[in-house]
Amino acid sequence: MSASPTRVSQNRSFGGDQQVFRHDSTVLGCAMNVGIYLPPAAASGPCPVVYWLSGLTCNEQNFITKAAAQEHAARLGLILVAPDTSPRGEGVPDDDAYDLGCGAGFYLNATREPWARHYRMYDYVVDELPALVEAHFPADKERRSILGHSMGGHGALVIALRNPGRYRAVSAFAPITAPSQVPWGQKAFRAYLGEDQAAWAEYDATALLPSAKERLPILVDQGDKDQFLERELKPERFQRACEEAGHPLTLRMQPGYDHSYYTIATFIGDHLTHHATALRATPRL
Amino acid sequence: MSASPTRVSQNRSFGGDQQVFRHDSTVLGCAMNVGIYLPPAAASGPCPVVYWLSGLTCNEQNFITKAAAQEHAARLGLILVAPDTSPRGEGVPDDDAYDLGCGAGFYLNATREPWARHYRMYDYVVDELPALVEAHFPADKERRSILGHSMGGHGALVIALRNPGRYRAVSAFAPITAPSQVPWGQKAFRAYLGEDQAAWAEYDATALLPSAKERLPILVDQGDKDQFLERELKPERFQRACEEAGHPLTLRMQPGYDHSYYTIATFIGDHLTHHATALRATPRL
Repeated sequence: MSASPTRVSQNRSFGGDQQVFRHDSTVLGCAMNVGIYLPPAAASGPCPVVYWLSGLTCNEQNFITKAAAQEHAARLGLILVAPDTSPRGEGVPDDDAYDLGCGAGFYLNATREPWARHYRMYDYVVDELPALVEAHFPADKERRSILGHSMGGHGALVIALRNPGRYRAVSAFAPITAPSQVPWGQKAFRAYLGEDQAAWAEYDATALLPSAKERLPILVDQGDKDQFLERELKPERFQRACEEAGHPLTLRMQPGYDHSYYTIATFIGDHLTHHATALRATPRL
Repeated sequence: MSASPTRVSQNRSFGGDQQVFRHDSTVLGCAMNVGIYLPPAAASGPCPVVYWLSGLTCNEQNFITKAAAQEHAARLGLILVAPDTSPRGEGVPDDDAYDLGCGAGFYLNATREPWARHYRMYDYVVDELPALVEAHFPADKERRSILGHSMGGHGALVIALRNPGRYRAVSAFAPITAPSQVPWGQKAFRAYLGEDQAAWAEYDATALLPSAKERLPILVDQGDKDQFLERELKPERFQRACEEAGHPLTLRMQPGYDHSYYTIATFIGDHLTHHATALRATPRL
């Protein structure tokens, strides 16, 4: 079990509290910052928890300062948890490129050196972080959901698909939907996982979708002016996999929108409403 | 007249466009970045313009990325204009301190060297910037309002009080209300204006209030956990001046809120609604 979190910052926001806490992660072997928003409803009892996974180059600050999510979380009674995107700090391997190493953990468990010791964001997000949040905050242990952006959209889809029953809802903004087939994913998978294509498939939403054990409806918003759309994101491949498997997907191509947090801020209310509806409903499993 | 603005960035946001443009300012003698949000309504005709003045250390990015204002501006049909907080760049004098020089223009016209040539943010905000906006964007030339935060709240109050009839509404978050009486203001006024107390009074909302020629209702939000409240902001002095003059002031002390953009994001909707109501009404002059 991890050590208790210490509070780094606290700001009143929409009647609730936007906090950042820091804790020593056993899984990652380093200290980690995590953003957590506690809605006003958390003062009087446990609330469902929505996990947000950010994209390349981000840390825990991007979502909490730019996504305009607190207004909706306050209204809907949702706790928002926004971790960093990779291990960091002294002794943690890094790379000069923005798309490998710190800021680019890809929400997987690395098996290759020098990454294998610290780069275990999959286990961190699936197990260690929820255990910590549920032990130290007024979190409803039975009601979790997950979403993210770009690399974090990939992470949210993969984590939901691989853990049936663990999340009540999943959604993504501009996710990397088929990382095994695009430059960002191939570079990261080769470095973190080696050349074994079967290992890659375990972190590829389009590859995982056909064997999904749970028909969790998926909401995806994708801007049609996103500068990474054709090269890195390829939502049409994921859409085809969903169609072939009969998996419920709502893919919204948003005209004029790009890859930025301006897009996230515009549609985060729709996503959190989607999550809140599922989190309040009786589970379908 | 200034040269035409060039577009630095453009992001779709809530159906409108968040842009940053750059232009050569004649008044300031340097190039300036300005954030401008065009709501969906601007596609079909002129919209009222709300000017936002940021606080110490900010540039044009803080408000457009952190204030969550676009949602409200889109709904209310308001153009939002967010300039930088000072002149910047090669040849512009600066100081190592965060509260003097670049990032700390205090929305005044400096008269002392080395500041007098470039530090003319008062003229820039009152005259040059609106002329530019009204020449190049679908701005309603008759409907302007102004608000700001901290140093920018001071600027908004001073500019509205000194220019009766020019703005339909004014409001502020955590404004420096009596700069002649507090360390931030005294340091800036001494550097930019010298020791002449009469010159200071021209940029001090509490000093200007008794001779206000227009009873523009003022809305102020002030967090009671603001770390600068007692030393720098002193809303009670401004409140007393308004009471003595019978000037309409709504001062809301917000429990638990601090000096950050989390506070601004929480209440910006109230402020923009206040502005929109006044901007749509028949002028009272």
